[in-house]
Amino acid sequence: MRILLTVAYDGTKYFGWQRQNDFVSIQETLEIALSKLFNKKILVIGASRTDTGVHAMGQRAVLDIETTIPLTNLPYAINNYLPKDIRVHKAMEVQENFHPQYDAKNKTYRYKIYNAPFQNPVLNSYTWHVPKKLDIEKMREASKHILGEHNFSAFCASGATSKTRVRTVYNLEIYKEDEMIFFDINGNGFLYNMVRIIAGTLVYVGIHKISPSDIPKIISSEERGKAGKTAPPEGLTLMCINY
Amino acid sequence: MRILLTVAYDGTKYFGWQRQNDFVSIQETLEIALSKLFNKKILVIGASRTDTGVHAMGQRAVLDIETTIPLTNLPYAINNYLPKDIRVHKAMEVQENFHPQYDAKNKTYRYKIYNAPFQNPVLNSYTWHVPKKLDIEKMREASKHILGEHNFSAFCASGATSKTRVRTVYNLEIYKEDEMIFFDINGNGFLYNMVRIIAGTLVYVGIHKISPSDIPKIISSEERGKAGKTAPPEGLTLMCINY
Repeated sequence: MRILLTVAYDGTKYFGWQRQNDFVSIQETLEIALSKLFNKKILVIGASRTDTGVHAMGQRAVLDIETTIPLTNLPYAINNYLPKDIRVHKAMEVQENFHPQYDAKNKTYRYKIYNAPFQNPVLNSYTWHVPKKLDIEKMREASKHILGEHNFSAFCASGATSKTRVRTVYNLEIYKEDEMIFFDINGNGFLYNMVRIIAGTLVYVGIHKISPSDIPKIISSEERGKAGKTAPPEGLTLMCINY
Repeated sequence: MRILLTVAYDGTKYFGWQRQNDFVSIQETLEIALSKLFNKKILVIGASRTDTGVHAMGQRAVLDIETTIPLTNLPYAINNYLPKDIRVHKAMEVQENFHPQYDAKNKTYRYKIYNAPFQNPVLNSYTWHVPKKLDIEKMREASKHILGEHNFSAFCASGATSKTRVRTVYNLEIYKEDEMIFFDINGNGFLYNMVRIIAGTLVYVGIHKISPSDIPKIISSEERGKAGKTAPPEGLTLMCINY
């Protein structure tokens, strides 16, 4: 049967989700754990290729296995073989033709900024430290222009191989708690580095380097060079994927 | 002149605040940075001896130095010589006889628990993961008995050298945000491991291993063995010290 896992991880020490030669990935680490548990070679298909340093609360991956372990116990069994910075939170049965990437309806990412003159050291690997005070109201104004269906080429890293650059952002919420600023963004899919480029662009708005009304022009330019810089990976977390 | 620094750190990679042979401490790391900056040997006196793995947002330390660097610039100058997991947030002049430990009026610590079946991996070094659901109301009830002046011998690790075991807890607030549970505790001083033993005891209340009405008996016993286990260091942060 096909089993869908929900996986959380601290991406700090991994070279991203995707299996690759010479570098330790989360996918490979999960596959090694599963192969040990089931005593046979197991491969998984993941939903999102998170980059080096990016974290996840709700990554998804499927594997095919016949097992007598009840699905409610399976996360405990798998976690037994995983390092502590990767945790399987849930396992559920899905149809044999279920695909975690293509069947996703929408995904939510959270980007975290620590906005204070000096960084909080415990957040080094989990936030982007922006020392200059950010203008949240302007950022909120800018975020409204990002909502909806657009060709997001201006917010896509070069080298991306997606067939189409059109994506729909359903929701983009910006909120502040003490020195922390959060961007919660939900959409039907995201181009390579798209969330981090949106975060970097919103920070440019927050420091008045560009204005909210520049956003429509940046989007319609379809030129990566017009948008802000790519925010660092450690601020990004894949929160959930809905099917 | 005597300068009082406010210091934040991620305690994960250090063997606590206190300078010691053979192990890297936060105090020594700070002294090395200051000695490089001022090009002479600098020693500091800290306010609190945080343990291995314990974090700080508001540790305090004094040094004596004649410098022409304006105090508002001093944190930037010092941070230049510090690793990223230690940050000086503030520098202010104090009187020559000021002592960061003896002159403290009260201190606030925060203890963080992640209360969900599976740990959130990004919180491994910053929370105590308690999988069993905690009864917050019972914990709040128990916390009221801890308030006030008591002989806290039952909440003091053996080997502590304090002259008196009497301390006053002014405030102990317990609150929950999603899976996170926070204990904010303010008092005129804390015995060795006292906050972590209080946290461990409150968790015993939260899992109904002991009842709130047991707390007065535990306190009056003055026996360490009656209280709960010592909660792990990674959940603890020294938040601030008031003078």
